[in-house]
Amino acid sequence: MGDVTPQPRRVTMAEVAAAAQVSVPTVSKVLNGRSDVAPDTRSRVEAVFDQYGYRRTAAPRQKRSSGLIDLVFSDLSPWSMEIVRGAEHAALESRHRVGVAVASDHAEVSRWLSSLATSRTDGVILVLTELADEHRERLAELKTPVVIIDPIGKPDPSMPSIGASNWAGALDAANHLIELGHRRIATITGRPNVLCSQARLGGYRAALEQAGIPVDPDLVAVGDFRYESALAAASALLELDDPPTAIFAASDVQAMGVYEAARQHQLRLPDELSVVGFDDVPMARWMAPPLTTVRQPLQEMAALAVRMLLADSAANFNQRAELATNLVVRSSTTAPAS
Amino acid sequence: MGDVTPQPRRVTMAEVAAAAQVSVPTVSKVLNGRSDVAPDTRSRVEAVFDQYGYRRTAAPRQKRSSGLIDLVFSDLSPWSMEIVRGAEHAALESRHRVGVAVASDHAEVSRWLSSLATSRTDGVILVLTELADEHRERLAELKTPVVIIDPIGKPDPSMPSIGASNWAGALDAANHLIELGHRRIATITGRPNVLCSQARLGGYRAALEQAGIPVDPDLVAVGDFRYESALAAASALLELDDPPTAIFAASDVQAMGVYEAARQHQLRLPDELSVVGFDDVPMARWMAPPLTTVRQPLQEMAALAVRMLLADSAANFNQRAELATNLVVRSSTTAPAS
Repeated sequence: MGDVTPQPRRVTMAEVAAAAQVSVPTVSKVLNGRSDVAPDTRSRVEAVFDQYGYRRTAAPRQKRSSGLIDLVFSDLSPWSMEIVRGAEHAALESRHRVGVAVASDHAEVSRWLSSLATSRTDGVILVLTELADEHRERLAELKTPVVIIDPIGKPDPSMPSIGASNWAGALDAANHLIELGHRRIATITGRPNVLCSQARLGGYRAALEQAGIPVDPDLVAVGDFRYESALAAASALLELDDPPTAIFAASDVQAMGVYEAARQHQLRLPDELSVVGFDDVPMARWMAPPLTTVRQPLQEMAALAVRMLLADSAANFNQRAELATNLVVRSSTTAPAS
Repeated sequence: MGDVTPQPRRVTMAEVAAAAQVSVPTVSKVLNGRSDVAPDTRSRVEAVFDQYGYRRTAAPRQKRSSGLIDLVFSDLSPWSMEIVRGAEHAALESRHRVGVAVASDHAEVSRWLSSLATSRTDGVILVLTELADEHRERLAELKTPVVIIDPIGKPDPSMPSIGASNWAGALDAANHLIELGHRRIATITGRPNVLCSQARLGGYRAALEQAGIPVDPDLVAVGDFRYESALAAASALLELDDPPTAIFAASDVQAMGVYEAARQHQLRLPDELSVVGFDDVPMARWMAPPLTTVRQPLQEMAALAVRMLLADSAANFNQRAELATNLVVRSSTTAPAS
């Protein structure tokens, strides 16, 4: 053997298809490493490639399906569970499984990225997870498609993101309270650096302004989506000289903190305090009284993320998708005591 | 080429180890497809295998690590989330990811089993999931290790299982109520065909009997771990001519149903009704009032399941492991109103 390797003749997909007795789209699927090809068919097509000395470049090889979609959370909550549920269902329809990872700090994100070396992924859904530049680069090197659910800070224009209509949902929540006759309406916000928290605060403000109710800064408490801070914030609100008659909490977990603050202040719900949440996780209907809340279509958001990742081309999807919320009225809201 | 293929000489592990300049255990690890071998080392050992014409049989090949552990739930609940959390953490320590699947009926179990064909698994944790004989056989064919958390019906002697000390936990819960002075203590059981439900009912009965309190069948309501049935059962209990002063619910979600029944009957917790739950999911401490409950070490149970699956031999583990529960007293229990 010398130094000159014979260059294989460039074979067309039609020739391969004819030789393997399959359709051209099937050849294309095998080339692109798609999973929806029967193993026998795949072997037949690959045998023809070998016969023609067709060398696939490294890139399509890497695209062979791993059968996995990865979900990365910064924390697991009742809210996360709905995302898992929706993603799992959509993934299984495309014969994919979902991997779930919790990466709450820099070291855990690094560890998770290392685990991708053992078993590849067909796509990553980042949920409320912050990436350092270093992690962003490592993810880009893996050439794995990424979709973000509820971005933190400014959306990264290179990554498509999915959210709910947070602004409109909060507008509905505040309007519901206004229509019941409330004027002293407080809000406990989510984590202020998260896009959806900002939109919810905006919707609350807009509803009050449209109704000619001045926004009282004393009635805007900064939260972080968690129970403990909501309990503290609600307690402080209820101890104001002129306390609110209604509280709009930016998550259902925060609404649970408001319920406990009301109990500690011996206020009956909803007669002495109305409460609206956000999310409509399963727990919302189990609260006593069942919670009026803004339903985010979390399962649908997750399913859309999976479909975007598994699509042949992201070109069919917008860079930013917002799915509609709707207000679910249960038993935690009523007219204010006069 | 004729019909006779030369038979490779049987090479010893020590010879391969010497040639590859690694230890014998490392050769064994590569042979067994273990993931804890550096890629360089693995290539060196595999090169020596090839050099000796050593043909590995199909079985050890299949054992090569997929880097994945699969969790299969019949349903996702706040309880499931703790299992996911514990499994994910333990798996990542062994550089594995966890896959989460929901298989609530026969068709979904079949679909999930098919998805294992695309991407293999290093082990399966079945959580409160019922397998048909057909599925059991397909799983056995995959030669994948399986561990069960909270078996349904009689434990399958061929599969190791993990649970909590359900009997002792329920005994603690009932004793706590007895020590507070309660005599009319009701219970709402879990799904009656699940081993842990039977053990919890047994612990409740034992505590009453030890205290010389006759078990009143009117105070034993059959539940299914869900909110709706617990709400209905608690409402019926509270409408008895001689209603209970305390209710022990066999899950925290069921305790939420008891809270709502109490609210609908205008009973204040805990003064007019004491409530104890079981599980201690995060939600338990967010309830108003925060729930006294029996803590199951769900994360530890899941971590143990992962370690059993990844162990070289299950021989180090018992066929049935029970982890200790402990009572967490919060604000939903007090002495009965006299």
